[in-house]
Amino acid sequence: MNYDLIILGGGPAGYLAAERAGHAGMKVACIEKEHLGGTCLNEGCIPTKTLLYSAKLYDGIRHGSSYGVTAENIRVDQRAVLQRKDKVVRTLVKGVGAALRTSKVEVISAEGKVLGRAGINFRVQAGEQVHEAPRLLIATGSETVIPPIPGLREGLKRGFVLTNRELLQLAEIPSRMIVIGGGVIGLEFASYFSSVGCQVTVVEMMDHIAGAGDEDLIAALQAVYEKRGINFVLGARVVGVGTDSVQYEKEGKVIVISADCVLLSIGRRARSTGFGLENIGILMEHGAVVTDEHMQTNVPNVYAAGDVNGKNMLAHVAYREAEVAINHMLNKRDIMRYRAVPSVVYTNPEFSSVGETESSAKRKGMDVAAIKLPMEYSGRYVAENDEGGGLCKLVICNQTRTIVGAQFLGNYSSEFLFALAAFIELELPLDDIKEIIFPHPTVCEIIKEAVCQYRHS
Amino acid sequence: MNYDLIILGGGPAGYLAAERAGHAGMKVACIEKEHLGGTCLNEGCIPTKTLLYSAKLYDGIRHGSSYGVTAENIRVDQRAVLQRKDKVVRTLVKGVGAALRTSKVEVISAEGKVLGRAGINFRVQAGEQVHEAPRLLIATGSETVIPPIPGLREGLKRGFVLTNRELLQLAEIPSRMIVIGGGVIGLEFASYFSSVGCQVTVVEMMDHIAGAGDEDLIAALQAVYEKRGINFVLGARVVGVGTDSVQYEKEGKVIVISADCVLLSIGRRARSTGFGLENIGILMEHGAVVTDEHMQTNVPNVYAAGDVNGKNMLAHVAYREAEVAINHMLNKRDIMRYRAVPSVVYTNPEFSSVGETESSAKRKGMDVAAIKLPMEYSGRYVAENDEGGGLCKLVICNQTRTIVGAQFLGNYSSEFLFALAAFIELELPLDDIKEIIFPHPTVCEIIKEAVCQYRHS
Repeated sequence: MNYDLIILGGGPAGYLAAERAGHAGMKVACIEKEHLGGTCLNEGCIPTKTLLYSAKLYDGIRHGSSYGVTAENIRVDQRAVLQRKDKVVRTLVKGVGAALRTSKVEVISAEGKVLGRAGINFRVQAGEQVHEAPRLLIATGSETVIPPIPGLREGLKRGFVLTNRELLQLAEIPSRMIVIGGGVIGLEFASYFSSVGCQVTVVEMMDHIAGAGDEDLIAALQAVYEKRGINFVLGARVVGVGTDSVQYEKEGKVIVISADCVLLSIGRRARSTGFGLENIGILMEHGAVVTDEHMQTNVPNVYAAGDVNGKNMLAHVAYREAEVAINHMLNKRDIMRYRAVPSVVYTNPEFSSVGETESSAKRKGMDVAAIKLPMEYSGRYVAENDEGGGLCKLVICNQTRTIVGAQFLGNYSSEFLFALAAFIELELPLDDIKEIIFPHPTVCEIIKEAVCQYRHS
Repeated sequence: MNYDLIILGGGPAGYLAAERAGHAGMKVACIEKEHLGGTCLNEGCIPTKTLLYSAKLYDGIRHGSSYGVTAENIRVDQRAVLQRKDKVVRTLVKGVGAALRTSKVEVISAEGKVLGRAGINFRVQAGEQVHEAPRLLIATGSETVIPPIPGLREGLKRGFVLTNRELLQLAEIPSRMIVIGGGVIGLEFASYFSSVGCQVTVVEMMDHIAGAGDEDLIAALQAVYEKRGINFVLGARVVGVGTDSVQYEKEGKVIVISADCVLLSIGRRARSTGFGLENIGILMEHGAVVTDEHMQTNVPNVYAAGDVNGKNMLAHVAYREAEVAINHMLNKRDIMRYRAVPSVVYTNPEFSSVGETESSAKRKGMDVAAIKLPMEYSGRYVAENDEGGGLCKLVICNQTRTIVGAQFLGNYSSEFLFALAAFIELELPLDDIKEIIFPHPTVCEIIKEAVCQYRHS
C-alpha cells in the first residue's frame, strides 16, 4: 500500500503524530507490534499512576485519624489494584484506537522494518506486506537498560529481577524489595511498594536520588521516605546478583543484601535496532537517532520523535516532538524547545520540576536568585497536610526579572507545573505574575507568595 | 498616635495591605476587633476547606474498594475534625500576626471608628484611644444577609438556624439539614454534611444552583450530588421558619419540610455601618463603599478593599484589591481588573470557573466557540476517578483566537485555574498555548486537548 506517511511505533509520539497527520488529511499508516499507547500507556505512566492513586488512598486512610477519619482492617487488595489498572489501561488504549480511526489512520499490527528506497518513497515491511510512503516518522521508543552485571540476566530470566513491565503484574506484595536505580521509575515503584507494606531498599550509584533535580528538594523528599521506612543506599554500585540477593560496592566494601525481588530501573535507552534504519543511512549517536529542532533526521523526509531520539524520555516531550514533526511536514512554523520541559515524580508528596535549578543556573553562570519557601505559606497546604515538609523553590533571573526554573515538593504541584513552564517559555515578567489572581485557598498560591518575596529582597 | 496609614479590618484585604505597606516603610496601624484573618481565615475559606478535606478522605475510603483499598468501621469523628480545624486556623492566624510583626505593623485589638478630619489627617477611634493618619483603608468585610423571613431571627436565636460561623462549631452531625441558598457557601457545607452522613436538602430561589456558572457544568454538579442523596429544591422561596421546619413556596404551593437544623447561606453584604464612614462623607451604594479602579473612594486618600466595596466577595479579590490600593499609595502603576477572577466551589468534584461562560459571552454579543470535553480525555482523570462525570469547557473568542473563559468540574481544577486566569489576562494566542508542554499524566492536559480540538474545528 502507498501512504503519505508511515510511522514506526504506536506510543505517545507515534499515535499523536498519526492522529494529527490523519486529521490534516494525510494518508497515514501506524505500525505497532504490541499495543497502541506504547510504554507510557501500557507499562509506564498510566499503570503506575493507577497504582499510586490506590496507594495514596491507602496512605490517606492510614493517617486518617489526624483528620478525624478512622477505620479498621485497612487493606490493599493487590489483585484488585492490578485488575483496576488493567481496566484503566484497556479503556485508554481503546480511546487511542478510536481517535486514530476518527483520523482515518491505518493501524498495522506488525513489526515494522525499513527496507530501503524506491524513488522518492521509503519501503517499509510490516509482517508479510510491504508499504511505501515519501515520509517516515521513527517513533520506536525505548527499552530498559540491562547492564552487564554478573547474575543479572539470570535473575531476570528466573523472575527474581523485574523491570517495570513485570513489576506491574506482580500479584503478591513482596516482603522485601531492592530497587536498583533511584530515578523517577525507581522512586515511584519504591513509593508504591513501601506504602503497601513492602520493606524497600533503593540502591543508587550517584550520591543522591531523583537525578538532576534541585538538591534541597531531593534531600527533603529522601527524608520523607526515610521516615516512612525506605532505606536509601547512595553512592553504591551493584556488582552482582545472586539467587536471592544483590551485592553492591560502596566505599571500597562489598555488601550483600537479600530480598524477595529486585526492580531494575537504572534507566532506559533508545530502541533503534532491528528496524532497518541502517538501510536508509539514518545517523545515530549512542544508539539514539539524531534529530534537529524540527525532529528531522539526517535523511530528508525522515523524522524521529519520542524516546528513540534520546533527547528527553518523557511522554509529554514525545507528544510535543510529534506535533513539531507533523507541523514541519505540513509547512507550519514550529520548533522544538527543551528549556521548559516539566517533569514530575509521582511520589506522595509529588516532586515537580521545570527549567533551571538553582545549581544548574549557577553552573551556567546565570545571575539568579532562588526563593525557597516552606509549603506552609499556603493555607490549603496547611489544611490538608498535617505532616508538612513541602517546599517551593523559584529560580529567578535578576537581569530579566523572569522565572527561569521552579521546583515543588508537595501534592497538586504536578497540576500547576505547566503554568510555570508557560511563564518560562513566555519570559513573563514577575510584575505580570504578581497581577494574576490566584484562587484562594490553593497550594499554587505559593507561586505568587514566592514572586512577592523576590520583590521584597 | 500618628500613622501613615490606618486600616480598618484585619481580614484578607486588611492584613495583606498592612503587610505590604509596612514592608514598603509606611507606619501602619491595623485595627481589628476580632481575630486577624477575618471571615476567610476564621469562619470561611480555611475552616471549610479543612472540613472538606476530612470529608474527601472519608469519601475516598468509603469508595476505596473500587481502587483495591478496603476498610471496616469507617467513621468521622466530628469533634476531632473540629479540633483539627481550630488548630489549622490558629496556626494560620498566628502566621498572619507574625507577618505583620515582621512588617512592623501595629495591630490594634479594638473596634475602629472614623471620627472625622484634623487637617490632612483622619481621626480614628480604637477603643479608648484616638489615632491619626493621612490615609485610610476601609477593609471591614461583609456579613451574612439575614432576610426578613417570619421566624428566621427567632430561629437564629434559638440555634435552629445557623450561619457558616455557628455551623463550623457544630459538634454533632445532624440527621437532617436544610440549606437555604445553593451558592458557594451552601454547596460546600451541603457537600461536607452530606458526605459525613447527614440528609441534606438545598432550597434555592433561582432555577439552578451555584450562581452564575456555566449551565452544563452546574447541571452535572447537581446530578453528582443528587446521586449522593442531596435533595435540591429549586425555584423555591423560603417564606417561614418554624420550630423544627422551614416553609417554602414553589409554583404557588407552600410546602413544609422539617429538619434538625438549618444553614442560612443566601448571601453576604458589605459591612459598612458603625465605622463612622458617614463622618467623612464616604459614598456608598446599596450599603457598599464605592471604589474606582485604584480602590479609591470618593474621598481623597481613603481607599476601600475587600468585601466592603461589594464588587466581588472572594478572599483572593480582596488580596488583589489590597495590593492595588497600596500600590496606588506608593505611586506604583497598577489597576484592578475583574475580568479574570477565578472562582472555585470546593465540592468533590471541585467546580472551577474563570472569565466568561458560554452564555455570558453570547449575551454580550461576543463571537465565541465553546469546546466541551468530558474529563476522561485526561489519562490521570481516568486513573483516579472511577465514577467519572467531570467536564471541561473552554470559551474561545473566534476573532482573537484567545481563551476568554474556562470552566471545569473535576478535582485538581482549583489548582490549575490560575493559569487560565493568566491566559485570559495576557490574551495569550491559542497557538502559544499549544506549544506549552504539559506534564503527562495530569488532569490539566485537558486544557491542551480542548485547545487542539478548537484548531480542529
